[in-house]
Amino acid sequence: MRSYTYDAEKLKCWIEREKIKKFAVQLPAGLLPRAREILEELGGYGEPLLYAEPAFGACDFPDLDAIPEIDGLVQLGHAEIPGVTKNRKILFLELYSTAEPKPPDKIPGNMGDRICLLTTVQYLKQLQKIADFLKEAGRRVHIPGPMNRTLYPGQVLGCDVSSAAACSTIVDSYLFVGDGRFHPAGIAMLTSRPVYRYLPSGRIEPLEFEREKFLRAGVSKASAIRDARTVAIVVCTKPGQKRLKLARELAGILKSHGKNPCFLTINNLSPEFLNYTGNDLLISTACPRVALEDYGNYEVPLLTPQEALLGLGEIKNYEMDQFLPGHI
Amino acid sequence: MRSYTYDAEKLKCWIEREKIKKFAVQLPAGLLPRAREILEELGGYGEPLLYAEPAFGACDFPDLDAIPEIDGLVQLGHAEIPGVTKNRKILFLELYSTAEPKPPDKIPGNMGDRICLLTTVQYLKQLQKIADFLKEAGRRVHIPGPMNRTLYPGQVLGCDVSSAAACSTIVDSYLFVGDGRFHPAGIAMLTSRPVYRYLPSGRIEPLEFEREKFLRAGVSKASAIRDARTVAIVVCTKPGQKRLKLARELAGILKSHGKNPCFLTINNLSPEFLNYTGNDLLISTACPRVALEDYGNYEVPLLTPQEALLGLGEIKNYEMDQFLPGHI
Repeated sequence: MRSYTYDAEKLKCWIEREKIKKFAVQLPAGLLPRAREILEELGGYGEPLLYAEPAFGACDFPDLDAIPEIDGLVQLGHAEIPGVTKNRKILFLELYSTAEPKPPDKIPGNMGDRICLLTTVQYLKQLQKIADFLKEAGRRVHIPGPMNRTLYPGQVLGCDVSSAAACSTIVDSYLFVGDGRFHPAGIAMLTSRPVYRYLPSGRIEPLEFEREKFLRAGVSKASAIRDARTVAIVVCTKPGQKRLKLARELAGILKSHGKNPCFLTINNLSPEFLNYTGNDLLISTACPRVALEDYGNYEVPLLTPQEALLGLGEIKNYEMDQFLPGHI
Repeated sequence: MRSYTYDAEKLKCWIEREKIKKFAVQLPAGLLPRAREILEELGGYGEPLLYAEPAFGACDFPDLDAIPEIDGLVQLGHAEIPGVTKNRKILFLELYSTAEPKPPDKIPGNMGDRICLLTTVQYLKQLQKIADFLKEAGRRVHIPGPMNRTLYPGQVLGCDVSSAAACSTIVDSYLFVGDGRFHPAGIAMLTSRPVYRYLPSGRIEPLEFEREKFLRAGVSKASAIRDARTVAIVVCTKPGQKRLKLARELAGILKSHGKNPCFLTINNLSPEFLNYTGNDLLISTACPRVALEDYGNYEVPLLTPQEALLGLGEIKNYEMDQFLPGHI
């Protein structure tokens, strides 16, 4: 697979152990255009077919019974999220960039001395070399160990930057290896330390993220719940986004405030359907990023559970929604 | 439920027989805005929650295991399609309009003497009265019995107008009761007899549908398969749209023509994903209407199975794709 490697041995072992012949392949959206090439390569291991709805993460995979005649599913790209599935017929096969990391053009002075180095699975194999570049330039590098939903040192997810947040008092800045905005923005939401991106070109640049403005917007939309007459609690059907315990707790609290919540389940949260369910306000227990960032696309207020609690006066300060142990 | 009735006894019996407490409710898209009102009404029978992805038909319902903590699912609106599911935990609860049918303003002279009267479940209860209006006006009325995927006399589906097509030699025209275009267009695709709509206002108007142009477009796009190097056969994961046998047969024929097809599964066929799978051409075995009418929204040619066969020279004349027995 051009520009990526994967652990072919892991794939072979899974095929043998689980007696897989036909299997579905699910890709991150960015790899869909290469689906044909990928299927041809994986055809060396069995009979692959494409499950064409892309994975937003290892939280997001289809029910195997829905796909005809398969023995299993390979989700390419993401690392497994601990505890999300025990189904041995699903293999999370990580993809690693084969690009050689470039030394940094220049390390911005205001990054400070102690740099926390982070990335996604795609660039995990580059992390040590980039750490060496930084050390050679006289910086101290901290690569935090995995926590909650991550498996590897330095790994962050869109929904889980807890390992980064946990070391905020011992580092001066965060450096995210990769060119997307989604992951470093997640870090910037949870910490007031500056966040930088290490682009594949070797350029290091600060992430533009106005944290204060972001938090003020959250506080502002939280207040909408006070006047909401009809409230729905949205539960996502994606296996790793189904926060039932949280949804039930919320329902109890809403009832104690005289709100009469209804429950609503959906796979892909989308304004197309959620704008029109006859509710004044929605509380999302799905991936935290949906209510934190996409709410502007909805015609009804879309709150995180914590925003709902803040609006109701159940908590006093703005708290960021996170996937925390015990809530799934 | 304002403006609709349903068989409350059927719902109660199902709740008791299957020991249902919590159940998901799935609606046609047009009823989503009334979801809150509907949940409140159904709350008299148990604990309903909304499954917010609307049903395109009784072919289209979620896997119950994906929805947390439910004992069953009520799909409101459509009639069950025979043979699509044996799962007794799923109830198809038909909704009937309570509107009183208005007598026709005027019966167009060119409708002929023998009128085939058709509708969807929504207006089924009005059909006999409208037949009486037509008879009083001196016309002969034929209401065809159910076939294939329908359950009731006069009922048509977007994917199945075979009962209408079967009587084309004994009627002069078709009259569809309802204001949508989707269902009468399905009739007009399969027959050269004129198709009319009986609008809720009592007005009868001819359906504008250029059948010859429609068929020419199908023949024209069929030819794209000759030059397609990479072809994917799309299998829909919706329970009533999963035509596996057909997909396998197609794959065999494609191989015999030197094409190397791959299989692709998806729930909602959408250009958003299907435009970008690295294939030159897609053949849809999902609901026939997708490839027949939505192909213009796709950047790659999207053919029905019959269009693919025509393009390959396996059949000589254009054949309309239909759900026929033995293909699911």
